[in-house]
Amino acid sequence: MFHHVKDLQFNARVSRPDPKFANLLLEQFGGENGELAAAMQYFTQAYGAKLPHPDKYDMLMDIATEEFSHLEIVGATIQMLLKGVNGELKDAADQSEIMQVMNGKAAKENIIHEALANPQFLALSGGGPRLTNSQGIPWCASYIHSNGDLTVDLRSNLASESRAKLVYEYLMQFTDDPYVKDTLSFLMTREVAHYSMFKAALDTIEPNFPPGVLQADPRFTQQYFNMSPAESVRGPWNEGTMPETGKEWIYVEDPIAHVKETEGLTAKEKGMDEKLAETEKLNKQMSELKSEEVNSAQPEGVAQWSDYSSAEK
Amino acid sequence: MFHHVKDLQFNARVSRPDPKFANLLLEQFGGENGELAAAMQYFTQAYGAKLPHPDKYDMLMDIATEEFSHLEIVGATIQMLLKGVNGELKDAADQSEIMQVMNGKAAKENIIHEALANPQFLALSGGGPRLTNSQGIPWCASYIHSNGDLTVDLRSNLASESRAKLVYEYLMQFTDDPYVKDTLSFLMTREVAHYSMFKAALDTIEPNFPPGVLQADPRFTQQYFNMSPAESVRGPWNEGTMPETGKEWIYVEDPIAHVKETEGLTAKEKGMDEKLAETEKLNKQMSELKSEEVNSAQPEGVAQWSDYSSAEK
Amino acid sequence: MFHHVKDLQFNARVSRPDPKFANLLLEQFGGENGELAAAMQYFTQAYGAKLPHPDKYDMLMDIATEEFSHLEIVGATIQMLLKGVNGELKDAADQSEIMQVMNGKAAKENIIHEALANPQFLALSGGGPRLTNSQGIPWCASYIHSNGDLTVDLRSNLASESRAKLVYEYLMQFTDDPYVKDTLSFLMTREVAHYSMFKAALDTIEPNFPPGVLQADPRFTQQYFNMSPAESVRGPWNEGTMPETGKEWIYVEDPIAHVKETEGLTAKEKGMDEKLAETEKLNKQMSELKSEEVNSAQPEGVAQWSDYSSAEK
Amino acid sequence: MFHHVKDLQFNARVSRPDPKFANLLLEQFGGENGELAAAMQYFTQAYGAKLPHPDKYDMLMDIATEEFSHLEIVGATIQMLLKGVNGELKDAADQSEIMQVMNGKAAKENIIHEALANPQFLALSGGGPRLTNSQGIPWCASYIHSNGDLTVDLRSNLASESRAKLVYEYLMQFTDDPYVKDTLSFLMTREVAHYSMFKAALDTIEPNFPPGVLQADPRFTQQYFNMSPAESVRGPWNEGTMPETGKEWIYVEDPIAHVKETEGLTAKEKGMDEKLAETEKLNKQMSELKSEEVNSAQPEGVAQWSDYSSAEK
Amino acid sequence: MFHHVKDLQFNARVSRPDPKFANLLLEQFGGENGELAAAMQYFTQAYGAKLPHPDKYDMLMDIATEEFSHLEIVGATIQMLLKGVNGELKDAADQSEIMQVMNGKAAKENIIHEALANPQFLALSGGGPRLTNSQGIPWCASYIHSNGDLTVDLRSNLASESRAKLVYEYLMQFTDDPYVKDTLSFLMTREVAHYSMFKAALDTIEPNFPPGVLQADPRFTQQYFNMSPAESVRGPWNEGTMPETGKEWIYVEDPIAHVKETEGLTAKEKGMDEKLAETEKLNKQMSELKSEEVNSAQPEGVAQWSDYSSAEK
Amino acid sequence: MFHHVKDLQFNARVSRPDPKFANLLLEQFGGENGELAAAMQYFTQAYGAKLPHPDKYDMLMDIATEEFSHLEIVGATIQMLLKGVNGELKDAADQSEIMQVMNGKAAKENIIHEALANPQFLALSGGGPRLTNSQGIPWCASYIHSNGDLTVDLRSNLASESRAKLVYEYLMQFTDDPYVKDTLSFLMTREVAHYSMFKAALDTIEPNFPPGVLQADPRFTQQYFNMSPAESVRGPWNEGTMPETGKEWIYVEDPIAHVKETEGLTAKEKGMDEKLAETEKLNKQMSELKSEEVNSAQPEGVAQWSDYSSAEK
Repeated sequence: MFHHVKDLQFNARVSRPDPKFANLLLEQFGGENGELAAAMQYFTQAYGAKLPHPDKYDMLMDIATEEFSHLEIVGATIQMLLKGVNGELKDAADQSEIMQVMNGKAAKENIIHEALANPQFLALSGGGPRLTNSQGIPWCASYIHSNGDLTVDLRSNLASESRAKLVYEYLMQFTDDPYVKDTLSFLMTREVAHYSMFKAALDTIEPNFPPGVLQADPRFTQQYFNMSPAESVRGPWNEGTMPETGKEWIYVEDPIAHVKETEGLTAKEKGMDEKLAETEKLNKQMSELKSEEVNSAQPEGVAQWSDYSSAEK
Repeated sequence: MFHHVKDLQFNARVSRPDPKFANLLLEQFGGENGELAAAMQYFTQAYGAKLPHPDKYDMLMDIATEEFSHLEIVGATIQMLLKGVNGELKDAADQSEIMQVMNGKAAKENIIHEALANPQFLALSGGGPRLTNSQGIPWCASYIHSNGDLTVDLRSNLASESRAKLVYEYLMQFTDDPYVKDTLSFLMTREVAHYSMFKAALDTIEPNFPPGVLQADPRFTQQYFNMSPAESVRGPWNEGTMPETGKEWIYVEDPIAHVKETEGLTAKEKGMDEKLAETEKLNKQMSELKSEEVNSAQPEGVAQWSDYSSAEK
Repeated sequence: MFHHVKDLQFNARVSRPDPKFANLLLEQFGGENGELAAAMQYFTQAYGAKLPHPDKYDMLMDIATEEFSHLEIVGATIQMLLKGVNGELKDAADQSEIMQVMNGKAAKENIIHEALANPQFLALSGGGPRLTNSQGIPWCASYIHSNGDLTVDLRSNLASESRAKLVYEYLMQFTDDPYVKDTLSFLMTREVAHYSMFKAALDTIEPNFPPGVLQADPRFTQQYFNMSPAESVRGPWNEGTMPETGKEWIYVEDPIAHVKETEGLTAKEKGMDEKLAETEKLNKQMSELKSEEVNSAQPEGVAQWSDYSSAEK
Repeated sequence: MFHHVKDLQFNARVSRPDPKFANLLLEQFGGENGELAAAMQYFTQAYGAKLPHPDKYDMLMDIATEEFSHLEIVGATIQMLLKGVNGELKDAADQSEIMQVMNGKAAKENIIHEALANPQFLALSGGGPRLTNSQGIPWCASYIHSNGDLTVDLRSNLASESRAKLVYEYLMQFTDDPYVKDTLSFLMTREVAHYSMFKAALDTIEPNFPPGVLQADPRFTQQYFNMSPAESVRGPWNEGTMPETGKEWIYVEDPIAHVKETEGLTAKEKGMDEKLAETEKLNKQMSELKSEEVNSAQPEGVAQWSDYSSAEK
Repeated sequence: MFHHVKDLQFNARVSRPDPKFANLLLEQFGGENGELAAAMQYFTQAYGAKLPHPDKYDMLMDIATEEFSHLEIVGATIQMLLKGVNGELKDAADQSEIMQVMNGKAAKENIIHEALANPQFLALSGGGPRLTNSQGIPWCASYIHSNGDLTVDLRSNLASESRAKLVYEYLMQFTDDPYVKDTLSFLMTREVAHYSMFKAALDTIEPNFPPGVLQADPRFTQQYFNMSPAESVRGPWNEGTMPETGKEWIYVEDPIAHVKETEGLTAKEKGMDEKLAETEKLNKQMSELKSEEVNSAQPEGVAQWSDYSSAEK
Repeated sequence: MFHHVKDLQFNARVSRPDPKFANLLLEQFGGENGELAAAMQYFTQAYGAKLPHPDKYDMLMDIATEEFSHLEIVGATIQMLLKGVNGELKDAADQSEIMQVMNGKAAKENIIHEALANPQFLALSGGGPRLTNSQGIPWCASYIHSNGDLTVDLRSNLASESRAKLVYEYLMQFTDDPYVKDTLSFLMTREVAHYSMFKAALDTIEPNFPPGVLQADPRFTQQYFNMSPAESVRGPWNEGTMPETGKEWIYVEDPIAHVKETEGLTAKEKGMDEKLAETEKLNKQMSELKSEEVNSAQPEGVAQWSDYSSAEK
């Protein structure tokens, strides 16, 4: 159950209207790396975590709720950056000022002129935030990743927080309003803080590599295929030791020849049967462990989500 | 600022898994008339209302927050209807049961079999709700309507609540689980309650017709064009008095001939100049009134969204 | 069966090219509240109405056909506003003029320069209307609402007409071409006229509240949940009498506490059994009535859409 | 201006409900190769053709209007194939029959059971056609091609008609209702007829190759790059004479070596300067011709779309 | 199996940054007629052709691979046109230069100023190409046509190449950088060359009209419906002989009357039974022929895609 | 420049047709976590890396090219799983077998019956792979993440590979064909291998936290907001030391009260000025370093992508 407090989590302020920046800022309202995307990603991930991992459920709902609160801050900032547009549009019978702008005669700082950077501020939203990105694409749930496995979901979140942080960093370069910069600095920093939370949570799950349940197939794990051969560079990603497994990289210098020789990689390597058997055994152990984790947490009979016994503080 | 309470607003329960119904129910999670659509519609409408219409702002945020809380209930119900799918998928090394289902040998009530109605429950979400409709289309912000004018926005909400109510009514016919029916009855009824709230709020704005600021042009208001002529029916929508204005309908029986005769409706009618002048006068009055409403509420200088002085209760 | 007359319903004229306004006007060609959206909404609604409600079918097809005719007017206006762009693009070997524009040396009124506001006028459509909104998003059928129930569909139409009217009102402020303004005034006013038609039609259906067939559940109809508590406002939407039902609003001041106390609203209220029984009885009556309306209109055996006996006038 | 006649262009009939086929048939209602896509493609192409090519404008509007009339036929057929669904949904209080279906106890031919193939027939449209394809994707204007040049647009139409014909051919295999087959045979055949019309129209434009205005660059016209080298096949598309120009194909057997040798194809060939000069000359001639075609047709001063003088017959 | 060579197929060069043109050029990177659309269209068509038509498979993969190589060229050009944007964004702590631009004080040629034409160059991609069109719409697979029938697919390709050629022609008018023009001239010309290849390939399939397997229904093939009657034009598309079949056009001057008279075109014409029987016979022959073509090419038992025996040269 | 070898990288084989699994497998062909998404993500990221980070460019193009090669393997598998569908559809005049299936009389293993799980295999693609996910949604470039900064892009890739691995793991449970399982095991394992490559590459960039250029704001880095307060859990993500920075978490137990007390977090903390100054200094250093990295790599004057001097091996 949600609850709303009219005060913003951070004291968003704006020195003066700036519709051009309002348009850029839409990236964080209705864009692919914006606050709604973050909120809905953690919110949908939380459902699967609730029974088997109540600690992660608590964390995901805490952060999802904070992201909703950030969505509100971004929207409020956009609304304040568009001050004047709404009132001007309501003055529907007197278009003298607007037409001066359309004809290029307006003073440079005229907000209607700048609002044309996003025609839908004028023709659709009446000077408020729309749930789109900076080019008018409506927010879409394909932006979010929620796959029912915490070793994957938490990694999706590390990436999402990284992108959101970078977008704020880019955006901060396009305003010199100190109040707006302060709000963006707060929002950018919270993405870094959330990154650290998700990383800490991932570290509590052992083992968490490879993500999911099954092991990598030992026949295909170590090869690096040199598919763009000229000016090839060797580095830790294709020579020496693999970071997660400690195995050696095998560098396939001429993949076309190699594929032909091995009849599409199906030629049997010596000693592989044993490794495969070992992998299969590990797969069975992990499967039992992981499915038991989920199944044992689910009650028999009627399912009920809440128990209404908890005290809030 | 949002805040989350782990208890659901309504005590959602589920007697037994039913993935087929879970799929239908996605319409209210990530569908065009679902709870997220309602929540985001009222949430974005609230921004423009905050300063000039704080009473409507309060109502919009109250109902938006309730809709978020309903979104959570719908998602929890879907998660419970999919009990078993997640655990089965985690048992990745033992696929005996799943393949029996794929080969059609499974018992009829097998949940994996039924989950195939939505392949993404199996291949993407790990048995949890995805933010899509019942055919897998990701939720999209073009579902929401927020146009910066309460006489329009509140009417959009009346329509949205009507559609949401109807979809619950349709859905209730596809489950016979008494707990699920009870939850749906709660959710359906709240849409009716919200309809009444928005209607009451619209009635407090006077005049609210036509929606927006400008009057209808008296030259084109009263005609009904009979564009699909055979088996034409006359009714209150094309004969007698118009409901909102008290004027008489003018029935254009043969629109093609009428358009040619009037050179595309541009032939001047007698007495129209006076009516046009009157309309223009009304337009100016309404424009001043409505733009003043907005402008006078906006502070000079630095804008600040919250004042942090309010006590919550 | 449709039929096309080359004359426009309204005599659309344009004083001079204006690609910037052509781009804004796309909102009414391929935008979410535009003429195609209206036409396709009423056209698809008409299918379900044909047999049980031939009077509403006639009205819906009349108005759908008028909206198609308006779509044509909007497209013609955009085409005329882009005069010169197409010819300039065909002069593919001589780019002297265009490059002056790209380098910022062109005269202010240069139409190629202004057409850059929508790059696809230049790179895709060859200077004609594309079926997108003002930000290039292709028209999408998720804009339309058609739900197989006239008490809902007609309400969707009231909202659609309200939004379309408002968008024309916004747009009229961005042109001072008297011919274009006249066309927009015609189109805006027809939305108001259609609103009145749909309202009159809805009023002929009794009862039409709640929309659909089922009654509201008496346990959950009257509560107003105060989900955004500080600075709460009381008004006709949460105190006094509900407009549609005459019942009293119940104001839930502290929803979190209330939900806990009632174990998720499941605690039984006194006297509710009787009200529930009454509701169920009403539901059965309405169900029989409404399903009979549809079923009795459908012929046994082979279905045939048209009978070819009607004379057109 | 459009006009609607209630009789269908073709006498669509249906022997018995078949929701599964109704779902497949949506491909031609709201699918990428369906009737709305065709109608909107020719309708938007017609705008640019109106002044310089009134004969093609007449043809495009004739066929666009026929495609709208086909859209109506397809929708009517879907509605008739869903007979019973709407009435069943209105009987909202009595779900005995529906739940038998959901529990798998229904007779095989039960239409509700079959309607589950498209959940939105049940949960959204109330048993009518929705403007989507057979997998529920809403129709989208990115399906249509309209590029302001008849030598291109008419070729787009040849392809569109070919695809639409093939889809009808596929669909006809999935119904054995003789009435439905007859309707599909009519619709499929009209696509072939339209193909012939567009082909005949393209042939009246001389020259029409290459499409557009500019000639091909003689440096890069004749090479065939053998980019997938093994088991390469030689045929009229890479040896002998090019069909449109009569020039010889140049077969680049080893593109990687060739690109390196020519420093990315920039090495100068002997005799090329002359050919380039000739091309440039042709480009200028065609540019003048084609731009004059458009420009000379456009009136000076106020533009007006219709003149209201034409008699319809 | 693909393989990458770091050298571009054509030596793409850029004289100076030009973000405005970079934005236009996105049409050919991530637009509906761009290089990715072409590459993926031929690539997906190739699957169905591999066994029954290995010659066309070779051609489709050759051209698909060339289009991927063109995609790389377009992207490289956009990246070079945006030189400086990425470095400027990395200088995150020093925004002096950027803010001068935002406040309109920057020199005209400032690339940051011009990059604002596409806000996502600044806020999302860090100054590189995004897989969108010039208005920011992400590339979408509904742009491609692949229908499992070469007589249709090759026609789709003729249309696609025509549109791609035209878009390059439009784009070439908006740059005067001789290096960029040279690259565009190369790319435009290759679309013409591919057109000729696909045309030559289509001509090797006999018969290829009508596209697909089934013949046109002789009852409905020859009529031209005059659906937009005034100012009607007669031409080879509605009088005289049909180009593909040699039959006579039948001009239906008054379609509404004709439909009524024939009861929706169902009135039987004399001599039609014989023609229908003949059509049916042809259909059977073609069906056997075409299905045999596919079926005989497919191996019994285990299917294997490659045989690894081919030498590359 | 790309190059195609007809042999697949892995020897994909299929024991028998299985259209139901073909449909599920579409997730990896045209789905959000599929092979095209991976290929296009790394391909677009590579542009920005080419000059300043040629080692990462080489790696990104190697892996992108391998993912294209995997896309081909997945498509080939789907095509083989649909054996028979294409031939059956070509036998257009003989529908006896298909209609038996439609009427439920077909043998259980009938492939046409199973292909109905994806109607577009029958009505659109002629039995081949379409570039959609398992619910028919066309692939969309909003699935890919490419943000012009390697510390972010490589993290996006870690998440993408994790999701792709998990989806293969889910899919492997729905086939018991040993050849298909072998192919999936290969593809799944390569995602793990790529994960290790990207991780190794990220580790070579120092520092890489926070992602991007700017430091976190010390005022807002350490707080954990307890936004979903009841049943709160403490763990390494909200108590003790932050993993990346070594600072202490600050647990805000009652965020509403805290926000009010600090007037929206703006109350100044002691000692913060110094920390802020330090952060600013670090920001300047990193900005110079990172922008210099990019700028110094870009040549003056004409830009040229390739130099054609490299030998391939």
